[in-house]
Amino acid sequence: MTSADSDQVFRVGLLGHGTVGAAFAALLPEHAARIERMTGLRPELSGVMTRGSGSFDEILEGSDLIVELIGGIEPARSYLLQAMEAGRHVVTANKQLLSQYGEELWDAARSHGVQLRFEGAVAGVVPVIRVLQESLAGATIDRVHGIVNGTTNFILTEMARTGMTFEEALVEAQRLGYAEADPAEDVDGRDAAAKMAILARLAFDTPVHLDQVRYEGIEHIKPEDLEYAHELGLELKLIGTAERIGPGLSVRVHPAFLYPRHPLASVSGPFNAVTVESEAITEITMSGPGAGGPQTASAVLGDVISAMIPPASTPPTSQVLEIVQDVSSAFYLHLDVADEPGVLARVAQVLAEHEVSVKSVVQRGLGAQARLVMVVHPVLESRFSAAMDELAGLDVLRAPARAIRVLEEEFG
Amino acid sequence: MTSADSDQVFRVGLLGHGTVGAAFAALLPEHAARIERMTGLRPELSGVMTRGSGSFDEILEGSDLIVELIGGIEPARSYLLQAMEAGRHVVTANKQLLSQYGEELWDAARSHGVQLRFEGAVAGVVPVIRVLQESLAGATIDRVHGIVNGTTNFILTEMARTGMTFEEALVEAQRLGYAEADPAEDVDGRDAAAKMAILARLAFDTPVHLDQVRYEGIEHIKPEDLEYAHELGLELKLIGTAERIGPGLSVRVHPAFLYPRHPLASVSGPFNAVTVESEAITEITMSGPGAGGPQTASAVLGDVISAMIPPASTPPTSQVLEIVQDVSSAFYLHLDVADEPGVLARVAQVLAEHEVSVKSVVQRGLGAQARLVMVVHPVLESRFSAAMDELAGLDVLRAPARAIRVLEEEFG
Repeated sequence: MTSADSDQVFRVGLLGHGTVGAAFAALLPEHAARIERMTGLRPELSGVMTRGSGSFDEILEGSDLIVELIGGIEPARSYLLQAMEAGRHVVTANKQLLSQYGEELWDAARSHGVQLRFEGAVAGVVPVIRVLQESLAGATIDRVHGIVNGTTNFILTEMARTGMTFEEALVEAQRLGYAEADPAEDVDGRDAAAKMAILARLAFDTPVHLDQVRYEGIEHIKPEDLEYAHELGLELKLIGTAERIGPGLSVRVHPAFLYPRHPLASVSGPFNAVTVESEAITEITMSGPGAGGPQTASAVLGDVISAMIPPASTPPTSQVLEIVQDVSSAFYLHLDVADEPGVLARVAQVLAEHEVSVKSVVQRGLGAQARLVMVVHPVLESRFSAAMDELAGLDVLRAPARAIRVLEEEFG
Repeated sequence: MTSADSDQVFRVGLLGHGTVGAAFAALLPEHAARIERMTGLRPELSGVMTRGSGSFDEILEGSDLIVELIGGIEPARSYLLQAMEAGRHVVTANKQLLSQYGEELWDAARSHGVQLRFEGAVAGVVPVIRVLQESLAGATIDRVHGIVNGTTNFILTEMARTGMTFEEALVEAQRLGYAEADPAEDVDGRDAAAKMAILARLAFDTPVHLDQVRYEGIEHIKPEDLEYAHELGLELKLIGTAERIGPGLSVRVHPAFLYPRHPLASVSGPFNAVTVESEAITEITMSGPGAGGPQTASAVLGDVISAMIPPASTPPTSQVLEIVQDVSSAFYLHLDVADEPGVLARVAQVLAEHEVSVKSVVQRGLGAQARLVMVVHPVLESRFSAAMDELAGLDVLRAPARAIRVLEEEFG
């Protein structure tokens, strides 16, 4: 606090240096310059408390904001309360704590006039907290459905894909880093229950404690259940639900079969997703990678930045990127052609001359109905367009060729 | 301003009373009590300017915040600039204006220290603006893909579903209120281009003007294109793209075929969706109903509420809902049974006694492998559980029965 520019610095104290904490500590300096441009303040790690080192009091003293990534109830709860009492904004990703002591913490934030942000506590970087707290503040919510545990979603996806047993898929998830060495709270549904307690509290504006959430895990799911699901056209997911039932509220987590058109049916692998239903808005679905070190750290950093900037400010542009017009695209190409020998060869030759490479061809029909349908590999659009111009001059074309782009990226 | 509690009131001036304006004017009083509980301020419509009535100066004078839902460039632009100059927060859903005069407006908001919110300008109630501005402020974005025009997505969905021509599907869209009497800007891609210009500006922090967005509509799409797409396992959508290309940026809108696993492939009917890709977070997808009076009005109201409350405050709970434990669920039921006559009858009788109604049954296998798989209609879980207890006592069961819930809601 003695440097000349100390008023330009925003000091972030970090509690906890596990997977998420370490990722956050790496992410912050990486983005510091951008954040300074956006906010006018340069964020700096003012101190890191690990299991064995660092003093909370010293870190608190030297910080404008405290990030809590220790997890568990104590000492995380006491630290957060002390930090807010001292007038510091706090950011946490601690779902256990919020699902059990949330009211105490939110009360403290209000009474000390500080921000308590916790986007990283549910569904990693999928911004469900912010959306429930802000975007949907004007909507009356009827139901929230969520796939909020990436470990179990990965396991169920693997079981469905390969026919593995639960035990085999769990080992695979551990091998790939999608399940912890002790996966108990993930696979028995308790982790998802904590997250649903938090979502239910925000969506329905009523106190919800983890103990009030009924949960069931996926340990008892058999490969046969997934086989039958496949036959019936269903998907099996671990689903969290919070919904109004008459004058009350039900909050629960259990495996459930979904019809293929359900917005959560296509969420696979370690992804998370949440659907919010409300009469006024029908439904919103948000999906993305679930908890993982870098993803959760990114959500935490988003919270830190939000605490630094005044709301709803659109910062000045920081760069002027050239707007590129000629990009590469794959194309579907539809040609009405004369049904005579050599047509395909002539078309293919024109394409080849312009370095347009054919991925697949379907030729069909006879006489006046003959059609060539092709998909070509990504090519600069200017080049494709030159090929189209030349094709237009071929006498074997009965109608102008039609081209439609194909998005080539693979997902999921 | 003369009433005794005038300091408890938050005065909202409304410019424009078309579809969205009228929906907003209806929504605000409906939620006034809830908003007062959340914010401590009672929102009130302080004035409404329509095409024929109302004075802007008088409304400005009597308002804490101005909502602009006139659309188009002038006088919307001048009104917003004047309001911000006078120190008022402003909320707008005007994509034409923001995609052409955005920098001027954002500059004005910053220099006058007021909020300019515009969630309703893109994808209705799907919170893409807030997520790009806040949640993803800490991420380096590589690409944004969007289905940001509900009219064209509805038309393409209908064409794919029924084999209709573009013209027929457009008439259907107009009949159902998904297309305007003059659909030109929707079907030719210009509406989507304006929205992509705004998203690109926020995602890449660089100025993007509507004129820099290359766009192509869906008027030339033929039923045959959708037939071939179906055969190739692809979906056809009007896709907006903003992506880094080397040191530059490409922003464009055109029809494109998507592979079935693409997160936008399953977005159908009048829905909108946006996918944001970034190395750190892989990808986030948000989807929901596109522009429509009530949906856009709901997004506008969310913006108004955000302008009223300090950021990231979790309000105290406003109610204590009873937590319901016994809910109704549909179940899949898997029974390993003896392969002998009368087994199905005995099982069915037990279910019937507990008022559990069977929706479908598959019986298969022989001898030691015989299995009964049933799906039952929604029933109180306590009742189902009693039926399961009784089934467990039947000597024809070779292993404990397994039950998994089925989500019955239909979507899309």
